[in-house]
Amino acid sequence: MTPLDVLDYAGVAVFAATGALAASRKQLDMIGFGFMAAITGIGGGTFRDLVLGATPVFWVEKPAYLIVCAVVAAIIYFTAHLVESRYRLLLWLDAVGLSAYAVMGAAKGLALSGSPSVAVVTGMMTATLGGILRDLLSGEPSVLMRPEIYVSAALVGAGGFVAASLLGAPLIAASGVGVVLAFAVRGGAIRYGWAFSPYRSRAGRRPEDVM
Amino acid sequence: MTPLDVLDYAGVAVFAATGALAASRKQLDMIGFGFMAAITGIGGGTFRDLVLGATPVFWVEKPAYLIVCAVVAAIIYFTAHLVESRYRLLLWLDAVGLSAYAVMGAAKGLALSGSPSVAVVTGMMTATLGGILRDLLSGEPSVLMRPEIYVSAALVGAGGFVAASLLGAPLIAASGVGVVLAFAVRGGAIRYGWAFSPYRSRAGRRPEDVM
Amino acid sequence: MTPLDVLDYAGVAVFAATGALAASRKQLDMIGFGFMAAITGIGGGTFRDLVLGATPVFWVEKPAYLIVCAVVAAIIYFTAHLVESRYRLLLWLDAVGLSAYAVMGAAKGLALSGSPSVAVVTGMMTATLGGILRDLLSGEPSVLMRPEIYVSAALVGAGGFVAASLLGAPLIAASGVGVVLAFAVRGGAIRYGWAFSPYRSRAGRRPEDVM
Repeated sequence: MTPLDVLDYAGVAVFAATGALAASRKQLDMIGFGFMAAITGIGGGTFRDLVLGATPVFWVEKPAYLIVCAVVAAIIYFTAHLVESRYRLLLWLDAVGLSAYAVMGAAKGLALSGSPSVAVVTGMMTATLGGILRDLLSGEPSVLMRPEIYVSAALVGAGGFVAASLLGAPLIAASGVGVVLAFAVRGGAIRYGWAFSPYRSRAGRRPEDVM
Repeated sequence: MTPLDVLDYAGVAVFAATGALAASRKQLDMIGFGFMAAITGIGGGTFRDLVLGATPVFWVEKPAYLIVCAVVAAIIYFTAHLVESRYRLLLWLDAVGLSAYAVMGAAKGLALSGSPSVAVVTGMMTATLGGILRDLLSGEPSVLMRPEIYVSAALVGAGGFVAASLLGAPLIAASGVGVVLAFAVRGGAIRYGWAFSPYRSRAGRRPEDVM
Repeated sequence: MTPLDVLDYAGVAVFAATGALAASRKQLDMIGFGFMAAITGIGGGTFRDLVLGATPVFWVEKPAYLIVCAVVAAIIYFTAHLVESRYRLLLWLDAVGLSAYAVMGAAKGLALSGSPSVAVVTGMMTATLGGILRDLLSGEPSVLMRPEIYVSAALVGAGGFVAASLLGAPLIAASGVGVVLAFAVRGGAIRYGWAFSPYRSRAGRRPEDVM
């Protein structure tokens, strides 16, 4: 397995775990755990492959990804009650998945399109889509709408990977840079509540105020 | 038409009917009926074709599927008020569509990928995606989150079809097995409220309790 | 640039603006503006390209579309507070985007599939999907469920373009017909509340009443 394969399996596994945790919060049955794990785990990568034209998508080519989702769902089904705060665990696993997938999405986008801006966007969307689908399906407020930094962490990770790659870093180093950057930003946001000042409705003011 | 073509048109038509019934519950206009019918009717098959790389998707190749959705929407528009409980009718039609699509999705997945596990997943996702989209768009709680068995019925139908096929059953027999299994499970769930015991938050206990 | 290129960039830009306006209503941060702008701006066209098998999708081929979304998001971020009613502006920009995309979606569908009914459907879905995604992600009631005419305007625009094309009109004339028709219908709906009489639950009555 290449470093990217490791990231890919890691991203699928931890996103699958967050999907199964969402299922546990909604008190679904065991098959519901597996379904939410699969959609969350493979959703982002499926989107990435579709827009890049890399079909059949990755889990059709390598069904082992589906087995990973099923196994993770079963583990969460039998262990979720041992965790003190399942939502907090979900957030941290989501951060790991976001970091892995931001790099994977950017790497595949860069390899197949050759365009840095496309790579950053496929990185961001791959990293965030699984969580978006999970929240939509389970009827919870989207993680996108939370006040602290989320999409920006994916942007930083994908951008860091692309920048390091363009500067000539080998794949494993560029991947490491991207994963560490994304996780540092998202982890700081979870731990310390990092947030940009959000947009607020305001009366007219001098443009310099917001620059 | 092959048996699979019949299943495909049946799946599109009954899911289209559930979409139109959802439109009637939301008091949309006639075009809204057609739109909800089309998205619900062709949503699952569209996803199946996209992930398998079978593009252009089926309704671009054979626009007759779109005509089916339009005709079904018009029929529901003029007859839905005659039905005593539109939600109950929606659930039963959804069960028929789920059964037809679980087999169709598994059959196309098996034919194009050769992998049984991929076939089971494309069957499950094809069967459930139309209903998921319908519920998301009409703002109703997802059928996925209902307590009684839903995804599991699609799993049983897709799994039954794949198992019968691997055992050498001819296409029409394997399809019959899958459709009957899926409908029996989902029908029992609607009629008798069949459900797995859902996951519930619990204090720590011996692992044997849940095995 | 051909007339269709102009429509395409216009559709992306105005839908991106509506996504950014939705972000401002939800008080997201600047990256959230860009993300919502991108998903809303390129969502419809991405779907169109996927179902038609035109992959990699348009923004992977021409990353300039992504730059457009980023620039539009930045402009809205710094100017949205100057607008009296951001929701009203969102609705009018949405109407422009819907008109441009109904024609673009129909034109690409007609060129790649050769089928008028497919072209009308890709037109309708391309025109409405961006707004659907925007509303789903920001947790607002879908524009689809509003009482006044919405999907019908896309249908009229796409149908007008296809009809004019089949009658031999040159591309630029057919595009103009489609855009003007769609915008007139949707604009009238916003300005004057045009609506079909919605479906209402009723007791049995003579079929002639509704014909």
